Amino acid sequence: MTRQEYKYIDSINSPDDLKKLDRRELVEYCRELRRYIVEQLSDNPGHLGSSLGVVELTVALHYVYDTPHDKLVWDVGHQAYAHKIITGRREQFGTNRKLGGISGFPRMEESPYDAFGGGHSSVSISAAYGIASAAKIKGEKRQAVAIIGDGALTGGLAFEGLNNAGASNTDMLVILNDNDMSIDPNVGAMKEYLLSITASRQYNKLKDKTWKFLSPVPGLRRAVQKSSAALKTWLLRRSNLFESFNFRYFGPVDGHDLTTLVRTLRQLKQIPGPKLLHVLTLKGKGYSPAEKDQSNWHAPGRFDPETGVRLSSSEGLPPRYQDIFGSTLLDLALADRRIVGVTPAMPKGCSMNIMMEKLPGRCFDVGIAEGHAVTFSAGLAAGGLVPFCNIYSSFMQRAYDNVIHDVALQKLPVVLCLDRAGIVGEDGATHQGVFDIAYFMPVPNLVISSPLDEAELRNMMYTASRSGVPFVIRYPRGRGEGVTPEEHYLEIPVGKARILREGKEVALLTLGPLGNAAARAAERAAAVGISVLHADLRFAKPLDYDLLHRVGRDFRRVVTLEDGVRIGGVGAEITRFLSENGYPARVTALAVGDGFVEHGTPQELYKLCGIDEKAVYRAIVGEGR
Amino acid sequence: MTRQEYKYIDSINSPDDLKKLDRRELVEYCRELRRYIVEQLSDNPGHLGSSLGVVELTVALHYVYDTPHDKLVWDVGHQAYAHKIITGRREQFGTNRKLGGISGFPRMEESPYDAFGGGHSSVSISAAYGIASAAKIKGEKRQAVAIIGDGALTGGLAFEGLNNAGASNTDMLVILNDNDMSIDPNVGAMKEYLLSITASRQYNKLKDKTWKFLSPVPGLRRAVQKSSAALKTWLLRRSNLFESFNFRYFGPVDGHDLTTLVRTLRQLKQIPGPKLLHVLTLKGKGYSPAEKDQSNWHAPGRFDPETGVRLSSSEGLPPRYQDIFGSTLLDLALADRRIVGVTPAMPKGCSMNIMMEKLPGRCFDVGIAEGHAVTFSAGLAAGGLVPFCNIYSSFMQRAYDNVIHDVALQKLPVVLCLDRAGIVGEDGATHQGVFDIAYFMPVPNLVISSPLDEAELRNMMYTASRSGVPFVIRYPRGRGEGVTPEEHYLEIPVGKARILREGKEVALLTLGPLGNAAARAAERAAAVGISVLHADLRFAKPLDYDLLHRVGRDFRRVVTLEDGVRIGGVGAEITRFLSENGYPARVTALAVGDGFVEHGTPQELYKLCGIDEKAVYRAIVGEGR
Repeated sequence: MTRQEYKYIDSINSPDDLKKLDRRELVEYCRELRRYIVEQLSDNPGHLGSSLGVVELTVALHYVYDTPHDKLVWDVGHQAYAHKIITGRREQFGTNRKLGGISGFPRMEESPYDAFGGGHSSVSISAAYGIASAAKIKGEKRQAVAIIGDGALTGGLAFEGLNNAGASNTDMLVILNDNDMSIDPNVGAMKEYLLSITASRQYNKLKDKTWKFLSPVPGLRRAVQKSSAALKTWLLRRSNLFESFNFRYFGPVDGHDLTTLVRTLRQLKQIPGPKLLHVLTLKGKGYSPAEKDQSNWHAPGRFDPETGVRLSSSEGLPPRYQDIFGSTLLDLALADRRIVGVTPAMPKGCSMNIMMEKLPGRCFDVGIAEGHAVTFSAGLAAGGLVPFCNIYSSFMQRAYDNVIHDVALQKLPVVLCLDRAGIVGEDGATHQGVFDIAYFMPVPNLVISSPLDEAELRNMMYTASRSGVPFVIRYPRGRGEGVTPEEHYLEIPVGKARILREGKEVALLTLGPLGNAAARAAERAAAVGISVLHADLRFAKPLDYDLLHRVGRDFRRVVTLEDGVRIGGVGAEITRFLSENGYPARVTALAVGDGFVEHGTPQELYKLCGIDEKAVYRAIVGEGR
Repeated sequence: MTRQEYKYIDSINSPDDLKKLDRRELVEYCRELRRYIVEQLSDNPGHLGSSLGVVELTVALHYVYDTPHDKLVWDVGHQAYAHKIITGRREQFGTNRKLGGISGFPRMEESPYDAFGGGHSSVSISAAYGIASAAKIKGEKRQAVAIIGDGALTGGLAFEGLNNAGASNTDMLVILNDNDMSIDPNVGAMKEYLLSITASRQYNKLKDKTWKFLSPVPGLRRAVQKSSAALKTWLLRRSNLFESFNFRYFGPVDGHDLTTLVRTLRQLKQIPGPKLLHVLTLKGKGYSPAEKDQSNWHAPGRFDPETGVRLSSSEGLPPRYQDIFGSTLLDLALADRRIVGVTPAMPKGCSMNIMMEKLPGRCFDVGIAEGHAVTFSAGLAAGGLVPFCNIYSSFMQRAYDNVIHDVALQKLPVVLCLDRAGIVGEDGATHQGVFDIAYFMPVPNLVISSPLDEAELRNMMYTASRSGVPFVIRYPRGRGEGVTPEEHYLEIPVGKARILREGKEVALLTLGPLGNAAARAAERAAAVGISVLHADLRFAKPLDYDLLHRVGRDFRRVVTLEDGVRIGGVGAEITRFLSENGYPARVTALAVGDGFVEHGTPQELYKLCGIDEKAVYRAIVGEGR
């Protein structure tokens, strides 16, 4: 698989180029595209499996539709690599997810072909319906297509979109990309329902008839509707969930059969109203290691494209925070029968699978449904249990009201575990977990914690499980600090900071694992004769007011550090507290400034945001102010 | 309808008392309960129509189930008045929604019969599923019932709940209280679907058979499933949306036929697994004025119970902010073809109905679906339009991620109109719009405004429509200040405050209509010789940094005022800015403290929160610190 083998890849720089190919060439181009993606991603990691799954679908869409006039909305969007390569970003593809490079998701500002941005799940139907409605109001002839996975369909937002678009009778197409996987295998009644559709022979037989009925000949459709078979037709229409929502259902079709896809899409372009095409695809299609182990090849890291051998090694590295979370949760659950686990579709991502294997009856993978995950957890807590509900920080934005309304107001002892808090790196603006401190600080009754290292994470989970109150634990993606946890659990006093270093000139107040970099900066400052008090806050809420009064009394210079936004963050709240109490200290709040943080490595982004060791050192010694 | 006519009402103080009545007496009790609610609400306003609609259902539930051991979860909960009266709160019912009185919604801390709190829509299925799952894990024999309206079913959270509960095979019952209304008539494909179920004779005929098939005789059910009619059965099962979600569907039944309800619920108690009972009710049932005009009798204010004449008069009062919003939106839309309106089920509540009547093709009522409302608006904006998306402040918490991910990140010109911002009064903790400033301040790219009065609201809407950026306008519930708007629209410079009074000793910086009370306080302070600079900030973001630098340079004492939470609010951000820039000013941030604000009149609550005129005066003159 060397560069020279490609015949078409270099000559396709836009959908117009694609349209010049004949069917046979298109099939060949799909093969090349797939190999190109594998080759590129083997060296520059990204989302492999889902992009391989939609190669033919992507080619067929750009072949049939008049993009960018017609609008393609990719749900989530990590499957849009072929789309990016076809639409003029082949040469930039090597910069995918790198600092200053192209995004791993569609971005409106990146290309006119990216009709709507991606990142989070289940938005595409609502967005495409908006685009279609705008065209209708403006009298423009424009097709709008949402491409959504079966995993994203478990998100309530997708149903809200279906419910509204269906009733509106707007011309639009939803393509259900059904691979029976999100990152982990899908769950819920929807999964079983889709399976029953595809499995039922009777159904497919009847569907063949429907296909004919609903062909774009209005007279025939009307005749059928009025025929003596009205009851049967009615049952048939109602026999499909999507048709309950007034979407015409087509399919299922083989998502790797380019000829069928092109023919079907051409037909669907002619049919007015809301339509849904059910396409069956294989995640990882065409690359056998990825086909065989779909979860692990969702985003595989570096690998040898010939052999499928993964090149990233964890040997000698500390365990990930996720590993610590997973093993600790099982450990605590074995000792405390009240503890249960809830995850919205991320059992492997957050390592709840460790508990799931041992205690399957006490773990709930609820699918991509963050709002439900939190309210369901509140129900579990109302029923006397202690749920650990693990949601990635940026996805918790989906459950904000559920936390306020169902957990905090009712003071229910749900442990909200925010994985991927702070800077996450290459996934970029939609995935950075930088808002959570600011959006949770104003919510009454919440305890908000951020452990310094993996040993603290264990003790904080233990503490949370015994607290009896709503308890947030935020921790970052990736490797821990290499701290060996104690064998026994320690209960951490809620709202108490821990002094890591005593000092007199500057008070350094840090939250979370960035405190480890800060400790090194304080050490360096001490070496040049600056006396730094360094406290690990442990809790953003409640703050350690005794400590803050001491800092207010004894220090004129305070530096705070957090891996979240400055506005409304813990540094801001400390500043407010000191001012309110009349302390003259001047606070330098090191935090993420007021703008979205794009993609890059975490280290690059810490530096860019001014929250790395160097920035702390400069703030302590007073440089660059 | 005088007090003496009641025979049963005083003797029912718990569901146990209810269980002593025979069927005839139960029917009579329902009549009394309905009259009691009408009588009580005629003098102490609350949610009338929906509570009248579920009188028989409520009585049947408490009659059949073993509450509070069995758990009833009322969705939204404003229909739970009969529930409260039956469960020992009859004597407190006169304090409903009053300061220190019982809440207008179920509250766990109010009664063991309130299994889960209410207020916001669509949570009940997830919560009841959590409660049922907890019972299962703990090995408790306990029934869990969610009672959800057809309006709340359009919320995606309800679908997430159905999808998960259905797949789990947990014993629980969802009662679909179908009155074809939320506050305004329902919309969307779901509405049409429910109508088609109830309207189809063929369907009902088949359903009668299903009812028999699925009667609690396992042998018979199995026999039917295995019979030669397998295909027919399969089609029948799939013929129902809810059965697609693995819920057994029963109904529809008449929700005012107590005997049928009791019999049906008794049968359903014996059937394992997830079940849905479709109950048809009439909003306002039994009180003819409320039956005839359901929207206006949702929460009618004071009225004469005999005649149905409404006693609240708006004569001589200034127009409501809602009226101004509605008429201005139409006005702007007539002049600017790009402007469209989006509301999640609140066309009358926010007065978008004014535009809807004139420009129906440019208004979208998307049902209770806040997340969709925002992402759909983002789609409309991506398609070149300028949507005014009006969502009540506390409901916007449901769309937080949609604002960040779909609007702010993409810089799309959606005008997010936050009605019911600030203190709303009697609806209480779940409805106070006090978090919006704090949760939106950290979001990049947003303009956040809060007009001083109705004239400013008009100009702010005009400004937003021309801004080309994501633009938040928050304004309160209720009457304006009586300021006559200018005939022509004025564009307000974004990020610029307006000086209302010049002064030298204290800088008073206020956001929104509370500024009018603050102006009076400043006037009074001036009368005792304290010179106050009073600026109406107009924008929480971007702040007027020129003004803040001036304040920092020239003032040692600053008072800020906002009708939102202190933590993360505009006062906090001003404090942070002044400290960061080394200004020595001491800031007194008048705002809502760190706790949920319960129900009461707005004036009572302003006082309680320390954000009324008196509190401003005291802060200016330096009392009580």
